[in-house]
Amino acid sequence: MPTARTRVVRESDRAVYDRETVYRILDEGFLCHVGFSVDGQPFVIPTSYGRKDASLYIHGSAASRMLRQMKEGVAVCVTVTLLDGLVLARSVFNHSMNYRSVVILGTATLVEDPQEELTALRVLSEHILPGRWNDARQPNERELKATSVLRVPIEEFSAKVRTGPPIDDAEDYSFPTWAGVIPLDMLAGTPINDPQLDSARAIPKYVREYSRKR
Amino acid sequence: MPTARTRVVRESDRAVYDRETVYRILDEGFLCHVGFSVDGQPFVIPTSYGRKDASLYIHGSAASRMLRQMKEGVAVCVTVTLLDGLVLARSVFNHSMNYRSVVILGTATLVEDPQEELTALRVLSEHILPGRWNDARQPNERELKATSVLRVPIEEFSAKVRTGPPIDDAEDYSFPTWAGVIPLDMLAGTPINDPQLDSARAIPKYVREYSRKR
Repeated sequence: MPTARTRVVRESDRAVYDRETVYRILDEGFLCHVGFSVDGQPFVIPTSYGRKDASLYIHGSAASRMLRQMKEGVAVCVTVTLLDGLVLARSVFNHSMNYRSVVILGTATLVEDPQEELTALRVLSEHILPGRWNDARQPNERELKATSVLRVPIEEFSAKVRTGPPIDDAEDYSFPTWAGVIPLDMLAGTPINDPQLDSARAIPKYVREYSRKR
Repeated sequence: MPTARTRVVRESDRAVYDRETVYRILDEGFLCHVGFSVDGQPFVIPTSYGRKDASLYIHGSAASRMLRQMKEGVAVCVTVTLLDGLVLARSVFNHSMNYRSVVILGTATLVEDPQEELTALRVLSEHILPGRWNDARQPNERELKATSVLRVPIEEFSAKVRTGPPIDDAEDYSFPTWAGVIPLDMLAGTPINDPQLDSARAIPKYVREYSRKR
């Protein structure tokens, strides 16, 4: 159920509050925008995330402005947006976008237990690029110390979803222009070898076939 | 010049403060995440935007939680992120992303003059889909009244840009794994006709050849 803070006010017919839909959106994305306030000024910072059950993990250096604030337990808003298309109606007014977005409100807390931090880093890594963790040199003690991981509980949330063709006012359907949808998708291109890579090394399947479709 | 609030703290070698670079990023994107606070709780809402000179315009219904707040002149943060790729290093720790992001801090103000509002809507439309405005049924008086447009001055801002291959610690270059970049790009697919469209109507060039590359 939405709270007064997560109830969708605008275009409430697009609102979705079920956990399954929210998880599906969170699992297709891996870039979120985290909002927090410093001295009354909001900041919105893009960062990657991973999800495990009802926990969202974000990470970064302990040096960042965001993490310094969050360690003190300030309120955050984490928003994930997947853009699916431009919706071209006959009228400028009814132009829209197809998208799926999730807004999570909560308090981010620092993951303090080293074992839980390592697990969270693995969740993050596998969320962004499944298969990579076991194929890379894993974090050593120094690196773990230099990394902060924050947990945001997925408790207070809402989603908005728009799909399908444009919806015009009845009298506009005869207006002489094209109408429809330009689909948009985040697609992976051909992997680029590191210039310092041994040229005999093959590109792994999880890189070659990378896709966010879930 | 950055202010204390926009100076990049983390990975400051990636910081960019020149207006030309910032405009190039803003002009390639059209989706921003707007942050604002309500009773101490930050909210981050995705929305489209347009840019003209040093003005960023966002719009929406006067009914939205965001706009109700912003009319009162609250502080906002507008963030635009273009994701360019996943960067796979040998070590988990040095994994990264290639991206270009802009953070603008400021106070959003309502565009009150009807003529300026119409101009701003045209800027928004042409920013998202150049060529569309003249091809669609333009806003009437009722629609203009139902629309709010906000202006955010592009005055206090910073950008972060990461490009290129992974950078590993010297001792990791011999680690036996693939390393490189998976390029990511937001691409337009084949346009989908509105089911109610006259099938004889051709898809216009600005739709067929839609691309964000600038």
